[in-house]
Amino acid sequence: MLPDFSDLAGFRKLLADLPGADAAATEGAQARNGQLTKPPGALGRLEELAIWYAGWRGNPRPEIAAPQVIVFAGNHGVARLGVSAFPPAVTAQMVANFCAGGAAINQLARLAGARIDIHALDLDRPTADFTREPAMSEAECAAALKTGWEAVDPQADLLVVGEMGIANTTAASALANALFGGAAEDWTGRGTGVEGDALTAKTRVVADGVKRHFGGDGIELLARLGGREIAAMAGAIAAARMLRIPVILDGFICCAAAACLRAVNPAMLDHAVAGHQSAESGHAALLERIGKAPLLALGLRLGEGTGAALAIQVLKGAVACHSGMATFAEAGVSAG
Amino acid sequence: MLPDFSDLAGFRKLLADLPGADAAATEGAQARNGQLTKPPGALGRLEELAIWYAGWRGNPRPEIAAPQVIVFAGNHGVARLGVSAFPPAVTAQMVANFCAGGAAINQLARLAGARIDIHALDLDRPTADFTREPAMSEAECAAALKTGWEAVDPQADLLVVGEMGIANTTAASALANALFGGAAEDWTGRGTGVEGDALTAKTRVVADGVKRHFGGDGIELLARLGGREIAAMAGAIAAARMLRIPVILDGFICCAAAACLRAVNPAMLDHAVAGHQSAESGHAALLERIGKAPLLALGLRLGEGTGAALAIQVLKGAVACHSGMATFAEAGVSAG
Repeated sequence: MLPDFSDLAGFRKLLADLPGADAAATEGAQARNGQLTKPPGALGRLEELAIWYAGWRGNPRPEIAAPQVIVFAGNHGVARLGVSAFPPAVTAQMVANFCAGGAAINQLARLAGARIDIHALDLDRPTADFTREPAMSEAECAAALKTGWEAVDPQADLLVVGEMGIANTTAASALANALFGGAAEDWTGRGTGVEGDALTAKTRVVADGVKRHFGGDGIELLARLGGREIAAMAGAIAAARMLRIPVILDGFICCAAAACLRAVNPAMLDHAVAGHQSAESGHAALLERIGKAPLLALGLRLGEGTGAALAIQVLKGAVACHSGMATFAEAGVSAG
Repeated sequence: MLPDFSDLAGFRKLLADLPGADAAATEGAQARNGQLTKPPGALGRLEELAIWYAGWRGNPRPEIAAPQVIVFAGNHGVARLGVSAFPPAVTAQMVANFCAGGAAINQLARLAGARIDIHALDLDRPTADFTREPAMSEAECAAALKTGWEAVDPQADLLVVGEMGIANTTAASALANALFGGAAEDWTGRGTGVEGDALTAKTRVVADGVKRHFGGDGIELLARLGGREIAAMAGAIAAARMLRIPVILDGFICCAAAACLRAVNPAMLDHAVAGHQSAESGHAALLERIGKAPLLALGLRLGEGTGAALAIQVLKGAVACHSGMATFAEAGVSAG
């Protein structure tokens, strides 16, 4: 099942033939949902979520016992162009913070009972400046996809992928713009806190990159405009699909990675839900383009997987109700 | 501190003089928030929530260790008028289900690490039909307020109040309409699943009740149009204020109880946040009238405290980040 990661062709081929959810488990979960001690539909979206999760896990009465959060980190050539409020050194500093347990994602993963894994991808070798050349060669992108693919624990029953990489909203904006068109300013936002002239400069960098690399499929764009951590997220999301591990998508950068996959196969994100809508300005439009309604909208714009990790709790709540509630018959409650 | 519950005057008097949040703890939390390893504001609403919680707990670096969920149940005279999709016997059946751990709220309370207490208030003595006479006498309402007041664990560090009571969306709609005006149809929704002629009849019941009992302050309206479980929720929310225990409000019925308190003192809900926006049609407008933006909006319309219990996780996430994250100095991260 491990694809050939020597170039991008093997990965691309894999995406053509995707496993689906288990129809019998989905039907079993639907039937159970109709018998639980509540008016029909009264748990709203929690009901859909539980049935969706049951289908992907192949179990009509599942539990969430082993969520995994993976944070990928990478550095970006375009960081030199002044597109971030923070210096590139912060990527490695934050990786150390993740490893020491001091970042927001550490707290949220712990609260969700999730294991957390940190993968720093060649931080001392930033991608190339995509306004001048492709950010990554095919081989570099394939290696990053492989890192992501292999980072997924086959025993996990839920996956969140997050990222850290100074300047990576610039890469994500370029990917979204190249995939979905429109103007660079439609997709370029404040990131960690870029404003005024710096935001104008960031938007120009996005426009220049898109102009240079326009065309090609989602995987080619991922190599030319993305980054190692973004490709690794894509690799992990794809691996989860093969393992039928449901995924909660995080913010703008995670969704840009996901959108590259979906551009190759529209069914590619059926095993994923959107954890939250970020305050990053392009995220709402990006969610719409990938057909996902967010579970949360609390104004987060941190990345790291934080919004998705918080949304683990919503999914856990959905599954806990679905699998733990009594039926009308069990509880002796009149069904209306 | 225990008010005189022989009539409503003692309770009303209590609401005139409310404790506030701890200003020093609020300031300490604000200062800490500015030093955490994230761009300023990047955790969005989680930052506000953590600071708000710190203020009410009087601790700039708090934790949530002992949440309490209380479900109050009551029966309603107007249930005889065909305003619910379920028969009144379901109230007691669901109380048994709560006590056996089989309801949605049991699963969500357990997931949130919350203790759960169930209080059934005189289920064999429904309130009077408010289209003909006051739902409760002053003494009956005061007794229900007292039950709610005394149900709050002084050692709790977070409170959710939920309810069960066939026909209680009708009572809540009447309260909202009497408090905020407009037409009965603006405030009357499907409840457990009422449609067509039954919804028309429900709306007429609301209109008749409001016409009969219009005028009087929030506490008088609570007695005339509310129910025992609704008054108990109000009593618990008020007790939490005196104990500086933050409250997460649940759906339409909980917010109607809260709105009765707020009508007497506009500062009365400063220790509360709105857990979610329910699918019950009047809830969005009711939240707006009480000045609360919901944390979640997942289409729940079950009551029991379910939406608020799910939102405990959001608040826990906020507090976990606030109190658990490293500062820039501690982590050796460049602050931009």
